[in-house]
Amino acid sequence: MSFKQSTSLKQIQLAHGGGGLEMAKLIRELFFTAFDNPILAAEEDAAVLNLSGPCAFTTDSFTVSPLFFAGGDIGKLAIAGTVNDLAMMGAEPQYLSLALVIEEGFELAKLRTIIQSMAAELAKSGARIVCGDTKVVPKGCADGLFINTTGVGRVLRPGLSAAKLQPGDAILVSGDIGRHGAAILMAREGLQLESDLISDCASLWQVVEQLLALPFELHAMRDATRGGIAAVLNEWAVRSGVGIALEEARLPISDEVQGLCELYGFEATDLANEGTFVLALPKRDAEGALEVLRRFDGGSKAAIIGEVCEDHAGRVVLTTAWGGRRYLDLPQGELLPRIC
Amino acid sequence: MSFKQSTSLKQIQLAHGGGGLEMAKLIRELFFTAFDNPILAAEEDAAVLNLSGPCAFTTDSFTVSPLFFAGGDIGKLAIAGTVNDLAMMGAEPQYLSLALVIEEGFELAKLRTIIQSMAAELAKSGARIVCGDTKVVPKGCADGLFINTTGVGRVLRPGLSAAKLQPGDAILVSGDIGRHGAAILMAREGLQLESDLISDCASLWQVVEQLLALPFELHAMRDATRGGIAAVLNEWAVRSGVGIALEEARLPISDEVQGLCELYGFEATDLANEGTFVLALPKRDAEGALEVLRRFDGGSKAAIIGEVCEDHAGRVVLTTAWGGRRYLDLPQGELLPRIC
Repeated sequence: MSFKQSTSLKQIQLAHGGGGLEMAKLIRELFFTAFDNPILAAEEDAAVLNLSGPCAFTTDSFTVSPLFFAGGDIGKLAIAGTVNDLAMMGAEPQYLSLALVIEEGFELAKLRTIIQSMAAELAKSGARIVCGDTKVVPKGCADGLFINTTGVGRVLRPGLSAAKLQPGDAILVSGDIGRHGAAILMAREGLQLESDLISDCASLWQVVEQLLALPFELHAMRDATRGGIAAVLNEWAVRSGVGIALEEARLPISDEVQGLCELYGFEATDLANEGTFVLALPKRDAEGALEVLRRFDGGSKAAIIGEVCEDHAGRVVLTTAWGGRRYLDLPQGELLPRIC
Repeated sequence: MSFKQSTSLKQIQLAHGGGGLEMAKLIRELFFTAFDNPILAAEEDAAVLNLSGPCAFTTDSFTVSPLFFAGGDIGKLAIAGTVNDLAMMGAEPQYLSLALVIEEGFELAKLRTIIQSMAAELAKSGARIVCGDTKVVPKGCADGLFINTTGVGRVLRPGLSAAKLQPGDAILVSGDIGRHGAAILMAREGLQLESDLISDCASLWQVVEQLLALPFELHAMRDATRGGIAAVLNEWAVRSGVGIALEEARLPISDEVQGLCELYGFEATDLANEGTFVLALPKRDAEGALEVLRRFDGGSKAAIIGEVCEDHAGRVVLTTAWGGRRYLDLPQGELLPRIC
């Protein structure tokens, strides 16, 4: 009996989501301690924020498997993902909500690690968790832990849009591509490569804040998550009614990612990134922006990878290393499930 | 082969969450059609909203089982739940995000019904879904469908708070209690009562808008979801440092709910509501507010159920129908899992 009790105290129980005493205790001891701020501490049905002018608003649920991977965990990912969606719209990541769906029996120690990882990632952008929700479902009804983060923040640079690309724009990428997808693939296949391959999972607000502070005429930014840079660039080409010409030789891809792609039949351009973004801006500003990108962690491989053109409207054209040309299409099929 | 294809087209596949072609198609055909509005149609990484002044911000994940129950479904619940959390803070429900975690193999027809149910419920408050996220997890990794809705809206009446109750306030409830919990219990146990017992699941914005428009001095409002009115009133008593005296005979409880409670050993005061709220305001305004509550759908049983007092600070005291007195405590233990 005493063994059972001490075990159960180390695991999430259904009562932790019941709206009663146990839930109140969990929220206070775990979440309020990690995310301490006056808005959250008000404990009302909704947080009250002071917002003014145009605000960006974005939501993401995270179901990544495994929960821990080289370079991050679901907590870091859930903060970085939503912070980045705000940043990509030229908005300062200010306020986040946090909603957890936890499977009964989930280890409390793991949950604590994930929550601490969220708190550490929040510190990188100054965003705050101001409201939350905790649900517990019976064993077998979810796979460990799902997290939703939804964010809101004021737009510092209005007008960034997937529909704003213009012929003559340069296309830049902020670092080498495909690392998150490759890291998850490695973790899932139980591969132990003798390599430094880790996910690019990171908050991009610091570098974006610098780009916004400089007088560059930014047209569009997008973090290349599910579907990789292929998905982003295809969407941009369609939305802006332009063609995008990429040079394969300029795509920054690490040897490790390239190797895994060859082994598993993936394209690095389809693989998810979680701290790498694509940027479109007039050519005259391209070198300046590149210099900013390279100054930040993970940006040493940043590159100008192509340009926007008038022909092939709605398509992305890749000039291969051998001089051939082919369309880079929107990814199709299953790719990697539960990548984020 | 052709059979397999036609079956799979009727079910959600992993590719619907992959960030590629299939996901884009699902989003456009299902979500954009149901929730059509210009902000959503902009399809950026984040929606851009025009907000000003104090705004309320709230999140909820919904894991209710079963997905369909008497009086509603998970879609209606996900809209009403978040709309109500905003309304309870005196805020107009303006913008909602929608994030789905769908189990592979989930029937497309069911998803369509749920999405249409959300659209119908949105129309009752005028709130709009302006951004979203779709994740698909492999079969067995989730139980059908989980939904997160997060909402933001401007505060029309600042200062409503769980900490604002004052001795002399009246405590009102907007309808008969425990119906959502009882309806879920019935559905889960496969009970077919010869009764009209349906969940109270509903958006409360219309009635709250009327209360806000009138010159009542409102102190606190809270929809009595998980943990029922027992959870809300205990939280209020602690946060405001007051006692709350309830009269059992005044609690509006239907015969069907009372019968189920006796059968299963629940207290109606612990059962979840999803369209019933508790209100604290000075006694002089109580009859006026009651008149407003009774004017709306589901409000015919609205009642003044008690008052705020100085003694028993932090506790809720129930005077029973027999004249005895006991503490009404914060619910404890498992209650009903997956109630919302």
